[in-house]
Amino acid sequence: MSDIAAIRAAAARAPRAIRRTPLLATPTLDRLAGRRVLVKAECLQVTGSFKARGAWAAISALAAAGGAPGVLRGVLAFSSGNHAQGVGWAAAAHGLPAVILMPSDVPEVKVAATRALGAEVVLYDRATQDREALGARLAAERGLDLVPPYDHPEVIAGQGTVGLEIAAQAAEEDVATADVIVPCGGGGLGTGIALALEAEAPGLRVRTAEPEGFDDMARSLAAGEPCRNPRLAGSICDAILTPEPGRLTFPVLSRLAGPGLAVSDAAALDAVAVAFRHLRIVLEPGGAVALAAALAHRDAIAGDTVIVVASGSNVDPALYARTIAAAGR
Amino acid sequence: MSDIAAIRAAAARAPRAIRRTPLLATPTLDRLAGRRVLVKAECLQVTGSFKARGAWAAISALAAAGGAPGVLRGVLAFSSGNHAQGVGWAAAAHGLPAVILMPSDVPEVKVAATRALGAEVVLYDRATQDREALGARLAAERGLDLVPPYDHPEVIAGQGTVGLEIAAQAAEEDVATADVIVPCGGGGLGTGIALALEAEAPGLRVRTAEPEGFDDMARSLAAGEPCRNPRLAGSICDAILTPEPGRLTFPVLSRLAGPGLAVSDAAALDAVAVAFRHLRIVLEPGGAVALAAALAHRDAIAGDTVIVVASGSNVDPALYARTIAAAGR
Repeated sequence: MSDIAAIRAAAARAPRAIRRTPLLATPTLDRLAGRRVLVKAECLQVTGSFKARGAWAAISALAAAGGAPGVLRGVLAFSSGNHAQGVGWAAAAHGLPAVILMPSDVPEVKVAATRALGAEVVLYDRATQDREALGARLAAERGLDLVPPYDHPEVIAGQGTVGLEIAAQAAEEDVATADVIVPCGGGGLGTGIALALEAEAPGLRVRTAEPEGFDDMARSLAAGEPCRNPRLAGSICDAILTPEPGRLTFPVLSRLAGPGLAVSDAAALDAVAVAFRHLRIVLEPGGAVALAAALAHRDAIAGDTVIVVASGSNVDPALYARTIAAAGR
Repeated sequence: MSDIAAIRAAAARAPRAIRRTPLLATPTLDRLAGRRVLVKAECLQVTGSFKARGAWAAISALAAAGGAPGVLRGVLAFSSGNHAQGVGWAAAAHGLPAVILMPSDVPEVKVAATRALGAEVVLYDRATQDREALGARLAAERGLDLVPPYDHPEVIAGQGTVGLEIAAQAAEEDVATADVIVPCGGGGLGTGIALALEAEAPGLRVRTAEPEGFDDMARSLAAGEPCRNPRLAGSICDAILTPEPGRLTFPVLSRLAGPGLAVSDAAALDAVAVAFRHLRIVLEPGGAVALAAALAHRDAIAGDTVIVVASGSNVDPALYARTIAAAGR
């Protein structure tokens, strides 16, 4: 199981290329949100999202456990987005091959970005191929180890290093009590952050943010048991659409997180535009849902300061161009 | 005159809101540039550019020199861009009124951004009004002190705090020798950085970057005496178009900087798109000219690592949308 010791160990193993991302703020954003807003800009992490942290933690642990050279022959992941790039980058930095399975209808820009990091992309047809079976066959044939996107102790520990930084940076800002809103798919990032804050900044409380209609974690936290989403497509926040909470993540968030928040696609796009205009950072809609919650649901948030995680930036340029050109504030 | 002591004093006076901006890097960018590239992301500074540093340094010095409350009654600046926002923000943070004179044909978004920081914007007609006379009258009537954009010792000292950070961050990256490319208008930023590096990282050498056709500093450095630009409009890099090198800046850069670089508008726009796609930061064309030089003029740059300053992000949303949607790499 993940715990604070695993998170600290992941931080100690992280290379300099995984950077301490800044905590951004600006008076205009405070005015828009009605309270002080501190934005943990993980979109500025190498590969454009926090996923590089978890991927590095998992692959470095595999490499250490593999022992003699040659035992660990490479890694495999299923992802068309940020996890693909995180695994591709971390594997290349370890000198290991990475095979990423993506559906064949994924935008070419995401395939290219993953290949540019040195990974091999294998495309499969969503309609006719079983990706699990394909992945299992590739793993067996080539001796690859799977790096899951969130339900894995080392991945959670790696994402938890964001929480160590938030604890230290909040202290530098004299913030001892605040909600920390975290974009939530399977819950790996929120879980890692919650475990880090429990140990190092117990006055900071994780709140998950999800798209409306895909708020399985919010409903699960409210119900006290895992709930599924009725569907898996139909939100612009494609990076964080998952069927249900993770087996490892839900128990931790159930114990440590406050009530979950859900935002509309329109609110997510507005947050993308606000981040462009006032913070000068590039966000994808799924990476902007925590900022969106701070802007659109201020009455649901406690305290005079809120910390939001801006988790990813893997956005389609055409969508981004439309979003910022249309924005009014 | 500015010197390292004034820069260190400016750093000591700076509030927490002026942040240590990150030094960003990513493998894809290194490949595009043919060497390691470290990007000092001053676009992430409060108000979206390094100008907040110089404005704070100048206004805090005025406030200290003003002595008894009431002696310093406010500040005045001429600018439609980053300097306007820097002065507006720094004055508000000192509890002082700021009057910013802007030409009446400036885009409304720049007026709104400056007003949002609490400044009073006074518009003048470029064709019929003498801005210097208007500024002098306002200053006399209201007892305002002028904050110049670059040719001022405290402004240069404030911009020099970027150089202190570059020296420390380069050391953290084990970089002792490199060109440091800096976008150059009047030269305040390059001058401050050059003075800081002379004292703290003498193996790092400033290189100025300017738009082609407006490379007065490059030509002045080559000639050994100040040269003027033949015109003052016609580049997309509007933030850094100035008539000639500053009186204070040119002698320092003449002593400390390497040969200047000049880039086309197309190269500046390509750098804006590369920064969007691979660094996830928002740059304006003038703020991207140093990155553009690293990408377009690699043969003119020494060493296996280059440091570039990304100086500002005050970009028109419609132009930005067109630029990133059209980009190919």
